[in-house]
Amino acid sequence: MQASTNEIEFYFDFSSPFGYFTATKIKAIGDEFGREVSWKPFMIAAALKVTGGMPLPMVPLKGEYSKRDMERTSRLWGIPYKQPDKFPISSQAPCRLIYWLQAAAPDRQEEAILKLYEAYFVQGLDISSPAVAAQIISSIKGSEEELIAVTQNPEMKARLKDECDLAIQKGVFGSPYIIVDGEPFWGSDRLDQVQEWLRTGGF
Amino acid sequence: MQASTNEIEFYFDFSSPFGYFTATKIKAIGDEFGREVSWKPFMIAAALKVTGGMPLPMVPLKGEYSKRDMERTSRLWGIPYKQPDKFPISSQAPCRLIYWLQAAAPDRQEEAILKLYEAYFVQGLDISSPAVAAQIISSIKGSEEELIAVTQNPEMKARLKDECDLAIQKGVFGSPYIIVDGEPFWGSDRLDQVQEWLRTGGF
Repeated sequence: MQASTNEIEFYFDFSSPFGYFTATKIKAIGDEFGREVSWKPFMIAAALKVTGGMPLPMVPLKGEYSKRDMERTSRLWGIPYKQPDKFPISSQAPCRLIYWLQAAAPDRQEEAILKLYEAYFVQGLDISSPAVAAQIISSIKGSEEELIAVTQNPEMKARLKDECDLAIQKGVFGSPYIIVDGEPFWGSDRLDQVQEWLRTGGF
Repeated sequence: MQASTNEIEFYFDFSSPFGYFTATKIKAIGDEFGREVSWKPFMIAAALKVTGGMPLPMVPLKGEYSKRDMERTSRLWGIPYKQPDKFPISSQAPCRLIYWLQAAAPDRQEEAILKLYEAYFVQGLDISSPAVAAQIISSIKGSEEELIAVTQNPEMKARLKDECDLAIQKGVFGSPYIIVDGEPFWGSDRLDQVQEWLRTGGF
């Protein structure tokens, strides 16, 4: 068996509050059950083209509810959160930086992802900007100039497109989306089922 | 303060598996906190006209996932469940019967709702049929003939329409949807937050 089959595949969009909430918890869940986390940033916009959905904040009734639900859940879970003025955003630049970091500093992916999420959902910074995202990652690896170039690198563009295509092939349509031993779980409200699945080997 | 302000408002569609799962639990939650349940069957199709959504089983990727998620959740929660061949259905007839029963036998609403849900989601009966729904309710109150007439009664038609309009005015867009002291909660996966809200008076 390859080690990769035992990884927790964690798909998330950088402009997803529930992706952020889950990112703060998934490593601890993996540690509890001796599983690595495979960090998979993707573009939810690519999935919406397939499902025919709209970005959540723009859906009548559901959008307003969701804003309230995100704030309430952040309070219940004790996670700092403030809905940014610019919401949602396109997450191409931070995604490409994380896929670059996967090769350049694989052990620091979680740290980088949480820094980007906190910059956006706590400090309100626009991480869709290559300069902003590059500055954040430069505290971990690389110079700002080098990292801005990464966000426009054809190889990283192709990599992100491939990851989005593969995600959709696997059925990923929302954020967060977690796959454990082939079993898919959508939403931070399925983390209890993820844990139960890891504990029992399936139910 | 009127007693009604303290009720747990429970909105659900008869063709919603998560509405069914929640219906099996909501009365016990109310009892735990000394709250009555106000049973509010409504037509999710009316809400989808506002949100621009599609019935869940028809959404690409999400529909297939949801089927799996419903079955998995039923196993985890120990609730008998089998996705009916005809799914989803229009729930006009069972909704009208429940609003009739609200006056005719108010103390037996929960029993009637669970009987309808089990007929559909366990036995696979087509409860969108007035004859089928009437037969189920006749074990509680009224003759089958009388109850079939109820499903076509102009007063009950108007009542259901009013309830759907009011639900949408309140922001209800999905099933189950629960309102506690003005705070809205969507989905069976928010029952933990409903309980926490009842326990703490808000967080």
